[in-house]
Amino acid sequence: MAQIDAVLDRIDADLDAALARLFEVLRIKSISTDPAYAAECRACAEWHAADLRSIGFEATAHATPGHPIVVGHARAAGKPSALFYGHYDVQPVDPLSLWDHDPFEPFIETRADGSKALRGRGTSDDKGQVMTFVEACRAWKAVTGSLPIGVTVLIEGEEESGGKNLPPFLASHADELRADIGLICDTSMWDARTPAITTMLRGMCNEEIIVHAADRDVHSGFYGNAAANPNNVVARILAALRDDTGRVTLEGFYDGVPELPEALAKDWSALPFSPEAFLGAIGLSQPAGEQGRSVLEMVWSRPTCEITGMGGGYQGEGFKTVIPAVASAKVSFRLVFDQDPEKVRAAFRAHVQRLLPPDCRVEFINHGGSKAVRFPVDSPPFAKAREALTQEWGTDAFFIGGGGSIPVTNVLKAKLGMDVILAGFALEDDRIHSPNEKYDLESFRRGMRSWVRILDSLSR
Amino acid sequence: MAQIDAVLDRIDADLDAALARLFEVLRIKSISTDPAYAAECRACAEWHAADLRSIGFEATAHATPGHPIVVGHARAAGKPSALFYGHYDVQPVDPLSLWDHDPFEPFIETRADGSKALRGRGTSDDKGQVMTFVEACRAWKAVTGSLPIGVTVLIEGEEESGGKNLPPFLASHADELRADIGLICDTSMWDARTPAITTMLRGMCNEEIIVHAADRDVHSGFYGNAAANPNNVVARILAALRDDTGRVTLEGFYDGVPELPEALAKDWSALPFSPEAFLGAIGLSQPAGEQGRSVLEMVWSRPTCEITGMGGGYQGEGFKTVIPAVASAKVSFRLVFDQDPEKVRAAFRAHVQRLLPPDCRVEFINHGGSKAVRFPVDSPPFAKAREALTQEWGTDAFFIGGGGSIPVTNVLKAKLGMDVILAGFALEDDRIHSPNEKYDLESFRRGMRSWVRILDSLSR
Repeated sequence: MAQIDAVLDRIDADLDAALARLFEVLRIKSISTDPAYAAECRACAEWHAADLRSIGFEATAHATPGHPIVVGHARAAGKPSALFYGHYDVQPVDPLSLWDHDPFEPFIETRADGSKALRGRGTSDDKGQVMTFVEACRAWKAVTGSLPIGVTVLIEGEEESGGKNLPPFLASHADELRADIGLICDTSMWDARTPAITTMLRGMCNEEIIVHAADRDVHSGFYGNAAANPNNVVARILAALRDDTGRVTLEGFYDGVPELPEALAKDWSALPFSPEAFLGAIGLSQPAGEQGRSVLEMVWSRPTCEITGMGGGYQGEGFKTVIPAVASAKVSFRLVFDQDPEKVRAAFRAHVQRLLPPDCRVEFINHGGSKAVRFPVDSPPFAKAREALTQEWGTDAFFIGGGGSIPVTNVLKAKLGMDVILAGFALEDDRIHSPNEKYDLESFRRGMRSWVRILDSLSR
Repeated sequence: MAQIDAVLDRIDADLDAALARLFEVLRIKSISTDPAYAAECRACAEWHAADLRSIGFEATAHATPGHPIVVGHARAAGKPSALFYGHYDVQPVDPLSLWDHDPFEPFIETRADGSKALRGRGTSDDKGQVMTFVEACRAWKAVTGSLPIGVTVLIEGEEESGGKNLPPFLASHADELRADIGLICDTSMWDARTPAITTMLRGMCNEEIIVHAADRDVHSGFYGNAAANPNNVVARILAALRDDTGRVTLEGFYDGVPELPEALAKDWSALPFSPEAFLGAIGLSQPAGEQGRSVLEMVWSRPTCEITGMGGGYQGEGFKTVIPAVASAKVSFRLVFDQDPEKVRAAFRAHVQRLLPPDCRVEFINHGGSKAVRFPVDSPPFAKAREALTQEWGTDAFFIGGGGSIPVTNVLKAKLGMDVILAGFALEDDRIHSPNEKYDLESFRRGMRSWVRILDSLSR
């Protein structure tokens, strides 16, 4: 029996134990954006460091000004090397009332068709995906005593909350972390049967505004019409961000946004993509963005502006006749090609200042930003990984675009000069960032097997 | 000593006991808009009924489909009669963090200049004001054994939450409640030294919208640009409610809104009113409403549209890259002269439907409405009450307009054919509906004395 077959068999034989390990880490409430969960984030980092040490990695949870960063090394002199990146933090779980179970009590659900899914916050984003890689390493170690290539594992805890502490950490640990190729498991497959490598990712620019007017909440009867109302002001600022055709109105926003290269446009138009199914999966039917663009362009190669949060005044049950002292909004721009997040931020701030009436002042909060990224799909590691995925899943793996941002990819490219293979096993219906997140058991099982094969392929 | 002087002396001698009674009722958390406080509202109604009985009123807390309505009678055959209206419910207290003390633990604050204020939710709106009248009755009873005119006291518990149950109650108890004149103590003085009777009040139309799009919250990276975003939709709907000159854009909104009658315009222009001081008191300096209107017009005789609450998506600390399934807003229109609240509501709903994109649906919640009111300032009761106030305060009482709405005034006029004298002792800086609400001790003391005099004047 070939060595790799023994390792693949080991994955299948060890499935229950792998699930038990995953469930341990899923139970840790590592919500990075909320300071109330700082201790749980630390516990999650310690868990990963201990787990990596248990399979022979030299691993440490490094303190940062925020949540710890876990680094584990299993070096292999003279062999190719890879840096695997994942994150142990998860999104908040509100509104809790929409979950049909405790988000931090994972379980396995058997669906009507007999297929199974892991249920709970982080099953898909990103704890389940991280563990596909760790379990692949564990199996290699168990069967052969070593890994086919040198591996460094880096698991951070601030991916869902701006990730400000990772870039300086990467810069100060560059020599220790640099490898021949980056591996990231935080993306989706094309569909439940078709693996994919994401070769383009949108960047982002996240910003919050807090608009203040009167020095207290006032009665809308006494002061209504005469007093500046921050709710009215914020609504006007937000509404003016797009024109009637869905284009973003910020000055210079589309600088560095070319039309899609013809070859790529042709590739994408050949993908078996159904806009109806894509939108239908979340109960929608009409593309809401820029008129005259395909849905794949809208989410992969066109920039956007989304209000991810807004609030002001009385939001409880009933009605309160109040003009609030303060209103706020959180805005997320998704960026493509060569858009500069800091230029977008500056244009947004100028837009806000221009629409700010007398007697109002605004606070800006920078929630991070990153440029879009593209990787060279014609280089050998990409071809090897694609072939490994094709073997595991029995169908051709696709090279695709991605709508979300994985800021670390920029930093790996910029600071360490590394290309990154983004191969993940999530599905579009995993409800990541939403109530009732899940991860298919097949994503987990074949994900582990896929990494067994990719590690092997990169050693050749 | 004239009888009235003995009653006025009794008010002064009994001040501490009157404050103790007021503090008892202030401690009851009668927040009517929040169902969690239903039992406290009931307790507050029972407190008032028992208190009225203790001074010889025949008083009952009547059950309604909402919070109880207290009615107490002290009839006087052959004498003029008055119906006094007040409310025992209070506004919510959020954000609690902005209070410098427990809103429901009232206390007396002594200010730098030696003057004193009662502090706590409801001190001014409306429990303190209600008790000025009840204490005036108590003093008349204590000194003379009876009241100079027949009095019915009606204290409701839903003034701050739409007041839907009062109109049917008034209709079904019309014969029991009808009197020669209405008295309401829920308005402000001109300033701390100058009493005023409010003879015009704006009406209102309160409405809530809840906009739904996708069937769950989705990731703004994956779906951003393609999926309808309820935050974006609500912001556009709200922003389009006013044009760049501050005028409300709803179709037909200004129907029934004449220019201010010349005589009234002349009266108002003679009032010692400082827009700078009015806005300066809440930290503002620029009138924010319709261009080309004076501040008094803006708040007394012009209609307005204020967003009193809005919310959608992630509003916690940090950032969440989410497109929410739902966003909502509460909008309060203030109406003047003959504007019809239901026509305004229909125009608002049409505006929302017109701006609602495909894939979105909207729920509307009607939070009540009322027409504006005006009373005949040249009729005898108004002249008598004005003279009584002038005597108590030693300076001419003004006839003024009012920006807020007191819906019961419409119902008293429409259902019972009664005019209403709106004489209150609140001050503009009482922070009603806001954190740190207060009521000047002088408002309370001279308010009680003012009602002693008004009851006397109406008996002649």
